Amino acid sequence: MTDAPKAMTDLIDLMARLPGLGPRSARRAVLHLIKKRGQLMGPLAEAMAQVSATARECLNCGNIGTTDICEICQSEKRGNGMICVVEDVADLWAMERSAQFKGRYHVLGGTLSALDAIGPDELRIPKLLDRIASEQISEVILALSATIDGQTTAHYIADQLPGVTVTSLAQGVPVGGELDYLDDGTITAALKARRAL
Amino acid sequence: MTDAPKAMTDLIDLMARLPGLGPRSARRAVLHLIKKRGQLMGPLAEAMAQVSATARECLNCGNIGTTDICEICQSEKRGNGMICVVEDVADLWAMERSAQFKGRYHVLGGTLSALDAIGPDELRIPKLLDRIASEQISEVILALSATIDGQTTAHYIADQLPGVTVTSLAQGVPVGGELDYLDDGTITAALKARRAL
Repeated sequence: MTDAPKAMTDLIDLMARLPGLGPRSARRAVLHLIKKRGQLMGPLAEAMAQVSATARECLNCGNIGTTDICEICQSEKRGNGMICVVEDVADLWAMERSAQFKGRYHVLGGTLSALDAIGPDELRIPKLLDRIASEQISEVILALSATIDGQTTAHYIADQLPGVTVTSLAQGVPVGGELDYLDDGTITAALKARRAL
Repeated sequence: MTDAPKAMTDLIDLMARLPGLGPRSARRAVLHLIKKRGQLMGPLAEAMAQVSATARECLNCGNIGTTDICEICQSEKRGNGMICVVEDVADLWAMERSAQFKGRYHVLGGTLSALDAIGPDELRIPKLLDRIASEQISEVILALSATIDGQTTAHYIADQLPGVTVTSLAQGVPVGGELDYLDDGTITAALKARRAL
């Protein structure tokens, strides 16, 4: 409901389907785009069309790239025998930003969830087991959310891999975190995993 | 900083320039778009390219449309001698959604602002005076924000139009508003403008 020309209302309706945008903020974004159609809207439309045409999931790990096998899976440097299991591509990107992990990834595409009826076959778990059998994997790092579903998934995967070293990310006080603002669960976990200085 | 392929980081950077989106929500939006590239990303890119190519400002009133003179200015039905002056196209759309006003509009493109050095010539005020002189205008409705800058602009415009009826939107309690949550200024304005039942 904008009483703008049809092409614009269509654009607003599409924008409103993005996460984090509603009808009102979509209208605002579209007006901003129209005002800056030379510098912003044209390039954005082009970039979107290009990514839409070229983006694909890596057949090996589920990462998003522009080739059937993603750059990380193709890179020989990254084949150090370690696989980091993440829920989502966003988590893979977050790991890459920290620039600490030098191995390859496996994107599950979510977590096991009894409530949403998501079992191992809905996720990329069978493919993970295949990879561990065929690639020479020395360690599987489970970088899953510290939620119930994330930890259930971690335990399920660990149970499937009796012959491989399986580790998970440490839990504790986040860098810059003040104890007063942390939840009890985090403090409990940090205390249990305390280290000698 | 995403370590995604170049085309995707470019897209994320462009998305992050939209109002209401930052780097993090732009990443989230782009991942969502990539997941729904068939149903959402393709159509969105197309809609954006189309609007980018066709959108233009109405030479008469400043509304955004697809023709040099917008549909409202072209429509004979809307030529009832009334002009509603708004700050922005978003305000024009808001007025149209209420479907109460049957005249034409004039989009100023902002408000007078001493702080931002915006004078009458930066806005579409000279064009408004031209229109009032050339079109047969019986009433000018000032639908400007109830802010200091908005009201300054309203008074400035009213001063320029000695021979025309100039009105402004009523101020008062918004529909559904509870007195307890209203600011003092609104209650003062509503009390001053009280009406006999």
